[in-house]
Amino acid sequence: MSRPPVFQAPKGMRDYYPAEMLRRRYIERLWRDVSIRHGFEEIEGPIFEHAELYTVKSGEAILGEIFGVFSGKDEEQVAGAAAGRAPFALRPEFTPTLARMFAARAGELARPTKWFMGGPLFRAERPQRGRLREFLQWNADFIGGEDSPHSKAAADAEVLGCMVGLLEACGLSSRDVRVQVSSRSAIQQLMMARCGVPAEAVPAALMLLDRRAKMNDAAFRETARPLGFDVDAFDQLTRDPLTAGADDPAFTAVWELIQSSYLKEWCDADFSIARGLAYYTGMVFEVHEASGAERALAGGGRYDKLIELFGGPPTPAVGFGMGDVVLSLVLQDRGLMPEGAALLDQLGRRPASLRPDVFVLSNATAEAEAQVRPLVAQLRRGDAGAAPDARSAVGPLHARQSYRATRNIGKLLKEASDVHARFAAIIESGSEATLKDLVAGTQERVALSSIAGRVSGS
Amino acid sequence: MSRPPVFQAPKGMRDYYPAEMLRRRYIERLWRDVSIRHGFEEIEGPIFEHAELYTVKSGEAILGEIFGVFSGKDEEQVAGAAAGRAPFALRPEFTPTLARMFAARAGELARPTKWFMGGPLFRAERPQRGRLREFLQWNADFIGGEDSPHSKAAADAEVLGCMVGLLEACGLSSRDVRVQVSSRSAIQQLMMARCGVPAEAVPAALMLLDRRAKMNDAAFRETARPLGFDVDAFDQLTRDPLTAGADDPAFTAVWELIQSSYLKEWCDADFSIARGLAYYTGMVFEVHEASGAERALAGGGRYDKLIELFGGPPTPAVGFGMGDVVLSLVLQDRGLMPEGAALLDQLGRRPASLRPDVFVLSNATAEAEAQVRPLVAQLRRGDAGAAPDARSAVGPLHARQSYRATRNIGKLLKEASDVHARFAAIIESGSEATLKDLVAGTQERVALSSIAGRVSGS
Repeated sequence: MSRPPVFQAPKGMRDYYPAEMLRRRYIERLWRDVSIRHGFEEIEGPIFEHAELYTVKSGEAILGEIFGVFSGKDEEQVAGAAAGRAPFALRPEFTPTLARMFAARAGELARPTKWFMGGPLFRAERPQRGRLREFLQWNADFIGGEDSPHSKAAADAEVLGCMVGLLEACGLSSRDVRVQVSSRSAIQQLMMARCGVPAEAVPAALMLLDRRAKMNDAAFRETARPLGFDVDAFDQLTRDPLTAGADDPAFTAVWELIQSSYLKEWCDADFSIARGLAYYTGMVFEVHEASGAERALAGGGRYDKLIELFGGPPTPAVGFGMGDVVLSLVLQDRGLMPEGAALLDQLGRRPASLRPDVFVLSNATAEAEAQVRPLVAQLRRGDAGAAPDARSAVGPLHARQSYRATRNIGKLLKEASDVHARFAAIIESGSEATLKDLVAGTQERVALSSIAGRVSGS
Repeated sequence: MSRPPVFQAPKGMRDYYPAEMLRRRYIERLWRDVSIRHGFEEIEGPIFEHAELYTVKSGEAILGEIFGVFSGKDEEQVAGAAAGRAPFALRPEFTPTLARMFAARAGELARPTKWFMGGPLFRAERPQRGRLREFLQWNADFIGGEDSPHSKAAADAEVLGCMVGLLEACGLSSRDVRVQVSSRSAIQQLMMARCGVPAEAVPAALMLLDRRAKMNDAAFRETARPLGFDVDAFDQLTRDPLTAGADDPAFTAVWELIQSSYLKEWCDADFSIARGLAYYTGMVFEVHEASGAERALAGGGRYDKLIELFGGPPTPAVGFGMGDVVLSLVLQDRGLMPEGAALLDQLGRRPASLRPDVFVLSNATAEAEAQVRPLVAQLRRGDAGAAPDARSAVGPLHARQSYRATRNIGKLLKEASDVHARFAAIIESGSEATLKDLVAGTQERVALSSIAGRVSGS
């Protein structure tokens, strides 16, 4: 009798032997720790969903790009599969699950709700460098909150900050990787007002713009022509994206926040970024390795209409996804993936604390209030945020702030203890705070610059 | 326009909101930490496999119990699904993936190879208490090693020890949960030699025995009759399983090891346990909550022919699977699932060290060699293994031993440093060892009872 064949994994799927599994765990640990320190809470959903969850948003064409799933036990489902219509689909992205989950409990969930997940997604594509059929994706989303341009820009910046926090935690620098920030709303406005695109052709023009880097210029222009899309006018207008986006309050607000923070060194305004998915409504961004040789490391943006589409109340939202495949390639190429005992030691470290290390609030004076956001961002970054000569042993911390309109300190302290924070820092001036140990019940007055050290027990 | 429906997760699938996700992470952490401390290395495989991976072992009937998967992009696959034959299947168990992965690299993998995984599995069943369509399962497998009854029994006992280590880590006691140990080979022998079952009917008789607890007695006996299965004779013979298993060297060897260790208080010999899956060849076991009210918490056994079936060399193997659903129910019912800040603190603890805390060997005298296995087991259990009055702050440790035939201390120390162990303990008598700090390069002579304290830095 001949020996049975050595079975292989399906094409584009991975077998993780122990060495590969450790590297997978390393990336998952980074995703998870950075998310937790930025105040996101972890969720997960089913590996497969009703196929309608994807067609409602993307149309029937999506079925040609995903894996259908049916129960072999259910004759009706087998018959459905016979017509090429499986009742279920392996999830090709997480946002529909997230929107469905938020919509189902919208009445009881906090505003904002900050969620992250890191799990497998599936696409029925031909496997190639940087692209597999089964891959892991990290998602972080900021859902709800006030509907003002300023408040939305603050959420956009916080989500960008979490993304950049991951890049820093990986050991990447702003020379290795660039964050390209754009605005779907600004581009739409430009296309319609100044580049000849009629409203009904805007979705197609956006899709085309998203594919531009993968096409040759002649083919791009040929496809643009029937859409009325004056490519030369668009290129001319967006050569200076800051002027091009000047009429879009959403873009100008987020760009100002970027410029006034450490995000400045990571971000470029770049209106060639349009993002392929139809649901983005405002700020969008992509993260690329600086040489441009790899696919995008991550992408995301604002999607203010999506929760509604899944049956929830109108809810602004912003988030991003980052896959593991390109990130792994970039880390390996730059020697940033630890090996041997160093990798084992990294994975043996204490994970990010699920209890906030510190909950930051202010005494409601303008001077103190202006310090909340920068201090929270700095605590979350740890050493990465300090000047090189000021770097201590203080690592990144889990820091939170309140998003509520109230300035009532009692209410804010209750919020801090409800989430089991260890410390609360009440900023009282541009340079000082009262630091309350919520476990011991003690308090002391400290300089803002010494909060990290006190809180981390050093 | 009417509001779109609030979409729901497919039946039998779970949405993990943050509170549920923390409980999921708690169970995954326990699985992972216990596995690592017992010297198992983590692997993962694809979420779906070629459907043949399951039919080769279980026949075509399995297709009626699993979820078929096909690419919506591939017309041939869509056509295949039309005939009810999807090319892929969501994995209903992990063992075929494990056997495939081992077979594919059998030439280069260590003997034994000790692997664990904890991930999602899928069954196209009607959801009910303790049973969902998507669930998590922990698998730990000991593959390869010497083919003697004694060596196999040692592997069986080590796998049982890992299982029991998890129960202890959950806070369960041997009054809460019982491990029922049986032997597929002993039962087969009894059936054929003394209960009238012809060889060709043995698989059916085993399947029937496995379902007995879920059937009424009349139906059970009616199905047994055409198999020639003399149920009364079987019940009479197995009333005393130790006598019934006395002719099976595999069973007697493992039972002796159980009786001479802490496993004794957890285990019962019980020949009503047959396990449903056809591939078991020797020792089998199930873990049940003591009242018997729930489904099995875990089950496993020896499967010495399976690696071969997947194209590998003949390789003895033993392992088990434990699902998350019943375990969660049992922990919740007994108040053993931490909540609030306690749960957050549990998840914030340092994980099990991937570097072995200590690698145990002996100077090859019989007296010292006999201490290796019990010491390793005790270090892995931590406080749970100490007499109540001797309990210190020393928690469970990651302890390893060598499985090689060599007694050459130089070679064994090289093995210890190859796996990045922090300490090596060379047992030199029934009570003493030389403890080498492999990082600092120092060594000292210590009592066996003080190794745990030295190694954990207290």
